[in-house]
Amino acid sequence: MSDAVLDTPAIDGFAAALVQQIRAQDTHGSWDRKSDADLLEPFILDKEKRRAIPIIGDPDPDTLWRLELYYGALCLEIERRCKRMVSPMMKMSHEGFGRMVLIAGRLVVINKSLRDVHRFGFDSIEKLNAEAEKLIGSAIEMIERFPAVADY
Amino acid sequence: MSDAVLDTPAIDGFAAALVQQIRAQDTHGSWDRKSDADLLEPFILDKEKRRAIPIIGDPDPDTLWRLELYYGALCLEIERRCKRMVSPMMKMSHEGFGRMVLIAGRLVVINKSLRDVHRFGFDSIEKLNAEAEKLIGSAIEMIERFPAVADY
Repeated sequence: MSDAVLDTPAIDGFAAALVQQIRAQDTHGSWDRKSDADLLEPFILDKEKRRAIPIIGDPDPDTLWRLELYYGALCLEIERRCKRMVSPMMKMSHEGFGRMVLIAGRLVVINKSLRDVHRFGFDSIEKLNAEAEKLIGSAIEMIERFPAVADY
Repeated sequence: MSDAVLDTPAIDGFAAALVQQIRAQDTHGSWDRKSDADLLEPFILDKEKRRAIPIIGDPDPDTLWRLELYYGALCLEIERRCKRMVSPMMKMSHEGFGRMVLIAGRLVVINKSLRDVHRFGFDSIEKLNAEAEKLIGSAIEMIERFPAVADY
C-alpha cells in the first residue's frame, strides 16, 4: 500500500463503481490489501506519462483489459440507472485503433471510435468521473429518445 | 478447377455477391483460375461434414475469415438495398461461442448469437442464399421501422 493513500480524497462516483468491477475480477483476493486509489492508479495518466508510452504495434493486454473494465463498468452504471441490460462490443484493428459500442436491445447507446488505445487513461480521477458521467448521460438520452429500440 | 464445375448451376443471388467479396480479397490473383463454385465450396457443409468437425478449442482462422466474409457481404447487400452504411462487429468468446451485430447508424439491424462457429457453413448454395435473404429482409424491416435510429 502506498503512503499516499491517506492523503487521497475518498473515491466516489463512477470511479467507485469501477473499483468494484476491478475487485470483482480479483477472485483470489490478491488485491485485498491494495487501496482503491492503488487499483485506479493505472487508469490515471498525466500528459507526461501518456507521451512516454509508444503508440507502435498493438496495445498491451493489460491496457485492453483496463479498457474493457472501464466500458464494462459504464454498462453496469447505465443499466443501474435505466433498468435495461447494456452490453459492450469492441473491435480492435491494428495499432491501437478500434471501435467500442455499448448496446441496449437493438440500440447503440454509446458509439466510440478508439485511437491510441496504448495511452488509454485519464488525467485524474475527477476527469475519469466527468468523462464517464458525460457518456452515461448521452446513453440515457439515447434510451429516452428511442425506448422502443432499447426495449426491442 | 474441379471437373464438377460444368455440372454446377449458375451461382446467383447472395452467393454471387459473396463470391465478389471473396475475389476482392485475392489481391495477387491466386484464385483467378478457381471457379465461383470452388470458392464457395468451403462455405458448404452437409450434415456429415459438419459432424466431422470437432467443436473443441477455438475455431480456426480460416473459419473466422469465412464468417467475417459472409457477414461483410451481408452488410454490403443491406447497404446496396437501403442506401445506408452498415458495419459488422463480432465478439468471439472461447470455444466457438460469440455474437455478431450489424450496425446502421445507431441501429443494430442484425443481432446474432454465434455457437459452434467451428462448423460455420450451409447445407447448399440454395440454403446459403435463403438464409442470407432472411437476414437481409429482417435488417431492412428494422431500418424501415426505425429510420431515425439508422440515420442517427
